[in-house]
Amino acid sequence: MSFLLVLDLAGTFVFAISGATAGVARRLDLFGILVLSFVAGNLGGITRDVLIGSVPPAAISDWRYLAVSLLAGVITFCWYSAVDRLRSPVLVFDAAGLALFAVAGAQKALAVGLNPVMAALLGMLTGIGGGMTRDILLAEIPTVLRADLYAIAALAGAAVVVISGLLHLPPAAAMIAGALLCFGLRLMAIQRGWRLPVARQPERPAVEKHVPDDERR
Amino acid sequence: MSFLLVLDLAGTFVFAISGATAGVARRLDLFGILVLSFVAGNLGGITRDVLIGSVPPAAISDWRYLAVSLLAGVITFCWYSAVDRLRSPVLVFDAAGLALFAVAGAQKALAVGLNPVMAALLGMLTGIGGGMTRDILLAEIPTVLRADLYAIAALAGAAVVVISGLLHLPPAAAMIAGALLCFGLRLMAIQRGWRLPVARQPERPAVEKHVPDDERR
Amino acid sequence: MSFLLVLDLAGTFVFAISGATAGVARRLDLFGILVLSFVAGNLGGITRDVLIGSVPPAAISDWRYLAVSLLAGVITFCWYSAVDRLRSPVLVFDAAGLALFAVAGAQKALAVGLNPVMAALLGMLTGIGGGMTRDILLAEIPTVLRADLYAIAALAGAAVVVISGLLHLPPAAAMIAGALLCFGLRLMAIQRGWRLPVARQPERPAVEKHVPDDERR
Repeated sequence: MSFLLVLDLAGTFVFAISGATAGVARRLDLFGILVLSFVAGNLGGITRDVLIGSVPPAAISDWRYLAVSLLAGVITFCWYSAVDRLRSPVLVFDAAGLALFAVAGAQKALAVGLNPVMAALLGMLTGIGGGMTRDILLAEIPTVLRADLYAIAALAGAAVVVISGLLHLPPAAAMIAGALLCFGLRLMAIQRGWRLPVARQPERPAVEKHVPDDERR
Repeated sequence: MSFLLVLDLAGTFVFAISGATAGVARRLDLFGILVLSFVAGNLGGITRDVLIGSVPPAAISDWRYLAVSLLAGVITFCWYSAVDRLRSPVLVFDAAGLALFAVAGAQKALAVGLNPVMAALLGMLTGIGGGMTRDILLAEIPTVLRADLYAIAALAGAAVVVISGLLHLPPAAAMIAGALLCFGLRLMAIQRGWRLPVARQPERPAVEKHVPDDERR
Repeated sequence: MSFLLVLDLAGTFVFAISGATAGVARRLDLFGILVLSFVAGNLGGITRDVLIGSVPPAAISDWRYLAVSLLAGVITFCWYSAVDRLRSPVLVFDAAGLALFAVAGAQKALAVGLNPVMAALLGMLTGIGGGMTRDILLAEIPTVLRADLYAIAALAGAAVVVISGLLHLPPAAAMIAGALLCFGLRLMAIQRGWRLPVARQPERPAVEKHVPDDERR
């Protein structure tokens, strides 16, 4: 349990930095930056907890999640240039956070007796939910919907945990293996620019077409 | 119960196609398209289940919702041109999905003892929630907020179920009648371009005014 | 309890007007305007109730929240010009709604035994959640993330309630004091243009930079 908690807090911290960085870049004020820190760091876990009926969610009832998120936000606010220069280290931290959240989320979903496929998907959701909400708050299409192997890496890590659970392997070992797989996949995807395929489309300019949204400017 | 499930899965499938189509049109990758399929097909039901305290939601604990959503996403991904040419059939399917979800959602809300007005509104929410979330993920104002009689049709169908419940009429008949009413209303609204009124405004260009969003493109 | 309910309904009404006004300005139809009324008036409370596990949320199970929201929406729809001319009165009402929601939300969170820091934050969330969801539905960055002392005022009001609870002071007095503090802070922030600081940034144009979103058009 304590092991899970440390993983979770570490993941929260790195994700909160990603939220705060996005907030600074959009010129939000200090409060907005702290909100984005909390959202990016915790919304994945909160959504998972609400869906499995474990309320109040850990990120609400345990003050340490808040403390870690605010710390990340304040650090980014005060030393934005420094954090910003760390861009590729931040990507590495972010990959680590993704790995930690995916395996911890899958483990929690298994613990409440969810079926294996959904436990793996909730692990993935724990990993990507915070970043998705961050982007929604910034009125952007979530990066994860087009990024290179981001969610797939989280799903792979979560799947390792779930499959190990089915085989009754020791959970701690499974979580380490799953996290390493997710982390490795994500780093290689960044380095080599791996991407998922995009559907082929007819010739006309596709973007404008989608919705009967006749008042679009 | 089994009858409700079949309705629900059929509605999930047609809505998932609408989500996948929107994803392809925005050039999301395969993962993004599958997420939009799942979201459009299931977020209405998931939101309803979370609000009535029935967690984990059926769409999370029952793998068939996921399977049906992914199937719709993969079909759209592989044969986008074909699906896209089906544009008006898709509108018809979408009207069918709306009708199925609205009546099934109202029935479920009644079953947990919600008051009639709110049961009808939750039926409507079940029908429109998936599409709204799809549009939010795409950073657009939900179509349903301006579409021709979309939500009203769902509300009418849900109301039939709720009123029949108050009168102790047989639920299956009520659901069929409600679904037909919703389906018919929506089709006629599409054909004849029925719309709800828009408020009269002062002369100045109204759209730009609302929020201090100084970074709008 | 009845005191809490009156506060809550009054707050719902003024927030619903803010939602309806935003909807009219964006040329939504009548249904869209009513949805925005309900969302702006109730989503803060609904989110709080879901997070503390009190489902179905009061705004769903008690018809009066719906009635008050729809009333506000219809009034705004019919007399938009009049409501719009009331722009600065609306800001005053909005400040009142914020104050009412923040203290009522903190009180409810305390009542279910949440820890004090989180009870204060849930009070704040109750105050700002409706407006944030309204802006997300309109595909905009929530105003509260950049507005002058909006959330901080809510947090201050909620904190008064929570601290008074720790000191075993009478709740009704604490709620009045908290609401007055929040209301006063917000009005002074509007009048004097108080703002939270924004992080210093490097020289390059910051807005475009934010996310590794290399497909942005």
